[in-house]
Amino acid sequence: MLVVMQHKATQDEIDVVCEAIAKMGYTPLPMPGEQRTAIGLIGNDGRVDDSQIVGLAGVAQVIHVSKPYKQVSREWRSGNTLVTIAPGVTVGGNEIVVIAGPCSVENEEQIVTAARAVRAAGATALRGGAFKPRSSPYSFQGLGRKGLELLAVARRETGLPIVTEAMDEAGAEQVAEIADCIQIGARNMQNYSLLKSVGRLNKPVLLKRGMAATITELLLCAEYLLAEGNNQVILCERGVRSFDPAARNMFDLNAIPIVHRLSHLPVIGDPSHGTGSRDQVTPMARAAVAAGADGLLVEVHPAPDRALSDGAQSLHPEQFIRLMQEVRAISQAIGRSVSPSPGTAALQIG
Amino acid sequence: MLVVMQHKATQDEIDVVCEAIAKMGYTPLPMPGEQRTAIGLIGNDGRVDDSQIVGLAGVAQVIHVSKPYKQVSREWRSGNTLVTIAPGVTVGGNEIVVIAGPCSVENEEQIVTAARAVRAAGATALRGGAFKPRSSPYSFQGLGRKGLELLAVARRETGLPIVTEAMDEAGAEQVAEIADCIQIGARNMQNYSLLKSVGRLNKPVLLKRGMAATITELLLCAEYLLAEGNNQVILCERGVRSFDPAARNMFDLNAIPIVHRLSHLPVIGDPSHGTGSRDQVTPMARAAVAAGADGLLVEVHPAPDRALSDGAQSLHPEQFIRLMQEVRAISQAIGRSVSPSPGTAALQIG
Amino acid sequence: MLVVMQHKATQDEIDVVCEAIAKMGYTPLPMPGEQRTAIGLIGNDGRVDDSQIVGLAGVAQVIHVSKPYKQVSREWRSGNTLVTIAPGVTVGGNEIVVIAGPCSVENEEQIVTAARAVRAAGATALRGGAFKPRSSPYSFQGLGRKGLELLAVARRETGLPIVTEAMDEAGAEQVAEIADCIQIGARNMQNYSLLKSVGRLNKPVLLKRGMAATITELLLCAEYLLAEGNNQVILCERGVRSFDPAARNMFDLNAIPIVHRLSHLPVIGDPSHGTGSRDQVTPMARAAVAAGADGLLVEVHPAPDRALSDGAQSLHPEQFIRLMQEVRAISQAIGRSVSPSPGTAALQIG
Amino acid sequence: MLVVMQHKATQDEIDVVCEAIAKMGYTPLPMPGEQRTAIGLIGNDGRVDDSQIVGLAGVAQVIHVSKPYKQVSREWRSGNTLVTIAPGVTVGGNEIVVIAGPCSVENEEQIVTAARAVRAAGATALRGGAFKPRSSPYSFQGLGRKGLELLAVARRETGLPIVTEAMDEAGAEQVAEIADCIQIGARNMQNYSLLKSVGRLNKPVLLKRGMAATITELLLCAEYLLAEGNNQVILCERGVRSFDPAARNMFDLNAIPIVHRLSHLPVIGDPSHGTGSRDQVTPMARAAVAAGADGLLVEVHPAPDRALSDGAQSLHPEQFIRLMQEVRAISQAIGRSVSPSPGTAALQIG
Repeated sequence: MLVVMQHKATQDEIDVVCEAIAKMGYTPLPMPGEQRTAIGLIGNDGRVDDSQIVGLAGVAQVIHVSKPYKQVSREWRSGNTLVTIAPGVTVGGNEIVVIAGPCSVENEEQIVTAARAVRAAGATALRGGAFKPRSSPYSFQGLGRKGLELLAVARRETGLPIVTEAMDEAGAEQVAEIADCIQIGARNMQNYSLLKSVGRLNKPVLLKRGMAATITELLLCAEYLLAEGNNQVILCERGVRSFDPAARNMFDLNAIPIVHRLSHLPVIGDPSHGTGSRDQVTPMARAAVAAGADGLLVEVHPAPDRALSDGAQSLHPEQFIRLMQEVRAISQAIGRSVSPSPGTAALQIG
Repeated sequence: MLVVMQHKATQDEIDVVCEAIAKMGYTPLPMPGEQRTAIGLIGNDGRVDDSQIVGLAGVAQVIHVSKPYKQVSREWRSGNTLVTIAPGVTVGGNEIVVIAGPCSVENEEQIVTAARAVRAAGATALRGGAFKPRSSPYSFQGLGRKGLELLAVARRETGLPIVTEAMDEAGAEQVAEIADCIQIGARNMQNYSLLKSVGRLNKPVLLKRGMAATITELLLCAEYLLAEGNNQVILCERGVRSFDPAARNMFDLNAIPIVHRLSHLPVIGDPSHGTGSRDQVTPMARAAVAAGADGLLVEVHPAPDRALSDGAQSLHPEQFIRLMQEVRAISQAIGRSVSPSPGTAALQIG
Repeated sequence: MLVVMQHKATQDEIDVVCEAIAKMGYTPLPMPGEQRTAIGLIGNDGRVDDSQIVGLAGVAQVIHVSKPYKQVSREWRSGNTLVTIAPGVTVGGNEIVVIAGPCSVENEEQIVTAARAVRAAGATALRGGAFKPRSSPYSFQGLGRKGLELLAVARRETGLPIVTEAMDEAGAEQVAEIADCIQIGARNMQNYSLLKSVGRLNKPVLLKRGMAATITELLLCAEYLLAEGNNQVILCERGVRSFDPAARNMFDLNAIPIVHRLSHLPVIGDPSHGTGSRDQVTPMARAAVAAGADGLLVEVHPAPDRALSDGAQSLHPEQFIRLMQEVRAISQAIGRSVSPSPGTAALQIG
Repeated sequence: MLVVMQHKATQDEIDVVCEAIAKMGYTPLPMPGEQRTAIGLIGNDGRVDDSQIVGLAGVAQVIHVSKPYKQVSREWRSGNTLVTIAPGVTVGGNEIVVIAGPCSVENEEQIVTAARAVRAAGATALRGGAFKPRSSPYSFQGLGRKGLELLAVARRETGLPIVTEAMDEAGAEQVAEIADCIQIGARNMQNYSLLKSVGRLNKPVLLKRGMAATITELLLCAEYLLAEGNNQVILCERGVRSFDPAARNMFDLNAIPIVHRLSHLPVIGDPSHGTGSRDQVTPMARAAVAAGADGLLVEVHPAPDRALSDGAQSLHPEQFIRLMQEVRAISQAIGRSVSPSPGTAALQIG
């Protein structure tokens, strides 16, 4: 940590900062400059709380050199973390995991048809929302517990493990009973109460980046999960807010190599929310894999025209078949492969 | 709602859209143009869910002409809503309500000293966090229930009503027992489970705008509260995320006249989070009142240098006295006044 | 400047950085830490170019502690710079200067009528565009030289000094011949060729913040003007790009106290572009003055319904009269006053 | 175009809008709704200027259904435009063009060494700045005319065509004399005077997206070039401003499929500016090609440690060799290939 003093800071003010650093158990190192003095904090163990310093008289700015997170950092653990969401389905290794399915579970026929379709195209896991965070209280809010049960039916029919969202503590317990991986959505990324609850449920977690979260904030939220003892965490880039109405979100694919550099956790891309528009999903799925994503989260609906939510960004099943072919080709070009559906011999892929 | 068709949309595709609109119970009105056809939806009652339309073949874009919210809209109720958080303390009328106090409740001496100081300067209500959402799991997370009890002590000592944050359903019930107004923080603005729970608690609510929430999204979140039967909702602009690191947030004061135009709910400004820097709090508090804010939320700490959180943006008590003087002068210049502390004769203010 | 090394940087890499700093004529000060080494650069004179350092092996990040600008900084000159655009019209002192007029000069009657109207309401200077930067090549591009001549006519009729935009070197010379102050628009803020030309013209300059410029970048662009020997520079906050379509721009009023802290140059606010909507101009003009702006730039048109550009954000003359009354009241509340029109006895104002 | 009236707009106000539309030569079509009336404008030819409408009494909002640009639109010309920057070097076809070289031309040895290195790795064209837009007036500003001459030397040595930036009208004429393609940089995207001058020079143009330009604005700026009779325009995504300091810019790769849908002009990606960090350039170059980019603009320097500008994002020559191998693999995976260096038999590539 570096404390930058104001141009006109007095020696007394500098001394007070040095004492405050010492009282926190670290060593202050003043660096007088032509324009201003900066004071280094030596011995930062990643848990320094700058709130004791930032308000002191004469302080212009506090600059963090160490990262504010710890257990999620690649400096804490250099090898990649592998997250296993079901037997044979592991995220973070060489194989790219494709999680596909409708935005919402609507009824048994819809979810089973969707599951069969994505399974036939080669998806590795099934997504589908039972609890839906919707901007308007008047929009369809999901089937709740009934939706979870229908997901279990679809898993029985296809063998695909289930990834689905929880929105609160009570819901998370229900999701944990049935699903293979608990999703925390973008709007709840900084719902710390939910993070703590989910961190204690001993299930793999898919944590989506918030609407306007920095990568550092995403990693800090993952740190909440690891701090509860759960390191089975998959991160997900799903587009962030921007000034350009040309797309629903701005899909920040550069987050993928950045997360890989900073953290040992796997990171996947969601081109459906990342773009918001069906015709951009396939090129951006290819791009996500080319950028190094460990997996994809893709919305596919048996009949997007009749979807109760997110129809405009859901692929038709035949579009998803094409997406899988292109994603396989890109995977091979970078020396990776697409993880087969559970129970499928790897050789049928390619 | 206007459905804009693609340049090359066929008559069949146009017909399918018209039928879908009719099936939803509205009237379609096709408008053929030189470049493309647009189809109006007549009879929108504010509850149209575009998900059935947006995914249809040939649709380029769906444009919402009606607002997606309803009960929060000034078109629903033209007069201003008054929110009464305690006897004599009403937000949304001609008087400007100043809610002040420390970021976190730290101990009895700190919160009582702070309450007395802001009361002496003329504040109308006391703020102070018992449950604290913090970016890092290793930062101070608040005193919890104990903090609520200390707030009650401070209220007893000063008569100031209490505004404090709830982060989850269990916490909201505790807050509702003790506090006069429940705050929902920026990070939880779109925590719909929390909104629904809090909406049912029959207490005034202070809803802060999310980090990167549009004004429409803020109003939709307020709609969640009103949809539960609670119209005692105060909105709060607290700065949004921007590209400029010069300030912690970008304080979007223009949100104040915009909210007043769109909604009947009162809106206040939080110059502490809005700027993140003590020396900008007073000018931006003045600006918020000049822009038409119905109140202010200001962080004041008896000793900001020793604050456990947000020290850099907390005012010293003597700075707050000055802020109150300037805010009173601005209020008078626009024909308003600052709401006195409860139990204070109005005439001593001025 | 602080050079932060990667976690695994070798001693050799650290030594190479230290040597590079020494070769640039500064003193390196290594600060070994638990997680990584940081190297301070001592003796920064504000002209350090980090490009020699930032690409070296083992460097994680370069952090600038000194400001990248120099002559515009308050550390370079502590007293406020006063910019005199005409005899008796000075920006940066206690008096608030209101520059008003139409977006574009359209014809003689329009500009003279506008000038008389804003003069009658108490404006200090006249704005009006002769060279117009327009998003579309098919929109009205301004009257050019003819527009400048009509502005001169309006000045003769009213005594108001003229502020008008230049878009290129040739145009800037024409503007300098006739106008009292040369405006550089938001889209050209980083047009360095234009900045250098205008810096040499020995005329006051009004420099508008770019669409998505940081405050540091705005100050660096002003530095281009000062580096050419011209310190008669007024800065202008006019709203920046944001994610929220609720307003044309996000009016960043907090830029005003921040610029005042960092620089000795005066800064004014443009609530017309800052909001984009007529009904928000007056509250945000009040707010700008309350935040400490040294002046206002306001679009007023004799008949906004027939304006060739920016009609939606132009005030009707009677709205401007009201704006002036409110701005005077706010000015008095903060101990300032509105600068009278040239040739007007100060006492008739108030 | 759709004119949305306010909730309480009177019939008179609606009539005035209809008359104004009719006076502009179009047909008004009023659509009365439950909440408000909207008025369609029929017959929009892409040149409607809404400024006559937007300021009328009772108007809430003007929504553009037609695109504001025309000649750049795919609705104007459905086939892809091919831009030929030198014999055998065409952008917009099936072959991907890689333009590589240093940020700035520094001296003869540097630029010739760089040109040979990128030629050897398979680049199709050479980039290098002679006129450099720099944030600070004290940074290296480029060699100017001398730099152009050195680029000509490098072309003679390697056969690579030259792409280099012009910053003003005088410079553009010099660039046009020597270079094969004139670059307009991000900061000058909306420098309309420059766009008009360059549009008349009858040379291929590479137009970079502005710092915070929407895709619509980028296309409108290209429209300025086409309106001058020059359709040899290549667009370039180079990252936009965001709230996240994790990268220098946010590389908006989704702009690539969006531009392809909206326009017939080719679009390339610049992963060097798009990321700002050497270790992200190669993955994001792969991603750009996977997303459908027609080419790449990559900074390569013989010795990035000694670069006078942008060292941190410049590749070492050996890194560029690797990038080319990976880009070839991705190109093949999507059925495209990398355009060979001029004078190279295509078969040696692959």
